[in-house]
Amino acid sequence: MLEDKNQNLTPISALGEFGLIKHLTEKFSLRNSSSEVSVGDDAAVINPEGKKVVVTTDVLAEGVHFNLGYVPLKHLGYKAVVVNLSDIAAMNATPTQILVSLAVSNRFPVEALDEIYEGIALACERYQVDLIGGDTTSSTSGLVMSITAIGLENEENLVKRSGAKPNDLLVVTGDLGGAYLGLQILEREHAIFLANPQMQPEMEGYDYILQRQLKPEARTDIKKTLEELDVKPTAMIDVSDGLASEILHLSDQSKVGFRLYEDKIPMDSLTISTAEEFNLNPVMAALSGGEDYELLFTIKPEDFEKIRNHPDFSIIGHAVDLEQGNFMVLRGSNELSQITAQGWDAFLNR
Amino acid sequence: MLEDKNQNLTPISALGEFGLIKHLTEKFSLRNSSSEVSVGDDAAVINPEGKKVVVTTDVLAEGVHFNLGYVPLKHLGYKAVVVNLSDIAAMNATPTQILVSLAVSNRFPVEALDEIYEGIALACERYQVDLIGGDTTSSTSGLVMSITAIGLENEENLVKRSGAKPNDLLVVTGDLGGAYLGLQILEREHAIFLANPQMQPEMEGYDYILQRQLKPEARTDIKKTLEELDVKPTAMIDVSDGLASEILHLSDQSKVGFRLYEDKIPMDSLTISTAEEFNLNPVMAALSGGEDYELLFTIKPEDFEKIRNHPDFSIIGHAVDLEQGNFMVLRGSNELSQITAQGWDAFLNR
Repeated sequence: MLEDKNQNLTPISALGEFGLIKHLTEKFSLRNSSSEVSVGDDAAVINPEGKKVVVTTDVLAEGVHFNLGYVPLKHLGYKAVVVNLSDIAAMNATPTQILVSLAVSNRFPVEALDEIYEGIALACERYQVDLIGGDTTSSTSGLVMSITAIGLENEENLVKRSGAKPNDLLVVTGDLGGAYLGLQILEREHAIFLANPQMQPEMEGYDYILQRQLKPEARTDIKKTLEELDVKPTAMIDVSDGLASEILHLSDQSKVGFRLYEDKIPMDSLTISTAEEFNLNPVMAALSGGEDYELLFTIKPEDFEKIRNHPDFSIIGHAVDLEQGNFMVLRGSNELSQITAQGWDAFLNR
Repeated sequence: MLEDKNQNLTPISALGEFGLIKHLTEKFSLRNSSSEVSVGDDAAVINPEGKKVVVTTDVLAEGVHFNLGYVPLKHLGYKAVVVNLSDIAAMNATPTQILVSLAVSNRFPVEALDEIYEGIALACERYQVDLIGGDTTSSTSGLVMSITAIGLENEENLVKRSGAKPNDLLVVTGDLGGAYLGLQILEREHAIFLANPQMQPEMEGYDYILQRQLKPEARTDIKKTLEELDVKPTAMIDVSDGLASEILHLSDQSKVGFRLYEDKIPMDSLTISTAEEFNLNPVMAALSGGEDYELLFTIKPEDFEKIRNHPDFSIIGHAVDLEQGNFMVLRGSNELSQITAQGWDAFLNR
């Protein structure tokens, strides 16, 4: 699919820049009344409808954020949208529009871009957001995707990273560490395949963590759930770089410290068993693995009863005074281990 | 500067992803009351202040849009912002915020990114826009910049590409073709330098066209000028890909044809003399060179007297019925030459 050796594939140059943009975007319809001018003018126009505008952007680069040796292009398009929508959800806002920019080398035929856009279209459908603009250009090598996501929200609903107070409870959605272990499986099987292309990859039984890595979802559902429970977070962030890193961000912006209870960190049983298979500590995968795209937030202590038994949430700690620092309370003891950011860092590992 | 051979330069990994973002953005202050939440949260928050939100994005890729062999990094940062602001200006809107995404290989030290951000800061200062977000990541090779620009504007001021009617006058700001000839000078001198690094580049006397290429400006001033003249364009686009390509876009979106008068196309005398030096037709540079970032727009025939003698504007043609097509009326004759898009196309020339 990727290498343009097949005579039946269409080189991008056959369509030209404007033809390509038209080809890739013409199937997209608009779902939100706020999307007034879309692809095809100098810029898009959004009607904010009396709301605040929330905007974020993320870059995914081939060889850094994804390896096309084992990431299907359709999943890549989907995930590129989701990671941005996750940032909008982390502001407790409703995503409404995206803009997609691609830099691609000529080794990609039009059909490869079609697959990426199929994934983008699927995410737009799933999350009810509109593709309203973008730019597509060639690059001298590799694929770089940059997506900008926009959300509209009433001011009173927005939640920043900076509102946590001492004694607030620390809550996380879903479970953690799965995406990192899914990546370990993909990399192991890819290495085996490279060593012996006759070998079939052994992916069976790893479905859940593979999906966590390849097709993550943004927790845009949490806003409504919290509204129904009448809980407004005091601070919120999404778990893209690992729980440790995100706790430190909340600490930094809210000027509080945190106590995290190791035995409260939610992990799927497959995450735990796969970690054991790789001789990894599953807690480290949750703390530093990243890419889980769950939401981490703080609530006032008096909201404890409202969420304590809700299946979407785990209460994993609480805020303390800033001077008390950020520590994890180890399982089965009262020992404290300092929380440090060993999260996945795009610049460190290559 | 670029290659990280100097022990005194700082590798990006020394700062880490978050340290780098902090380092690059901490000197930026906010100028617009609409910028409510800036760098440092999951997303930025804009207060639209009752206006529509105009948003556009552009990617610049090393080796495609720029060659670091002769484009200073500071200029690159400046230009990357300007090309986006030009799109906002082409909607007749006021730019207010930008988000900057960078994918850079490890061969760039922090000091190289500092230079890019100096250029970005200069553009923010010059155009009074706020840097409110972005993302920075490593890439396996080369530099890709993706900038998203946001503008806020009252609905009644916005101008799309689609409003031109037959008999409307076709108007362009400034002069055309200069940026393309500036590029020819840069490429010629770079080739000479590569052949013989002892040779000094001969840039003297080419200042204006070099500046048109290296440090273009967005015509955000035109909105006010037109307001003062009490003229509202019926359709507008910016000249990024060449006059021919932009006329065809207006034609396509407005469902009209155009007559362009060759002898009315504004060109600087240095553009003309440099074209002759390269044995190029200067009109072709204007039609297909691109990167001039002037504004091309249509006005109602009755507004003719208001702008006919204004130094910022040249009336270069008029709209006709769609069936009459798009033609240039050749100089010194009534012969017609069909306007075709031979504009610079990022996918064709490599």
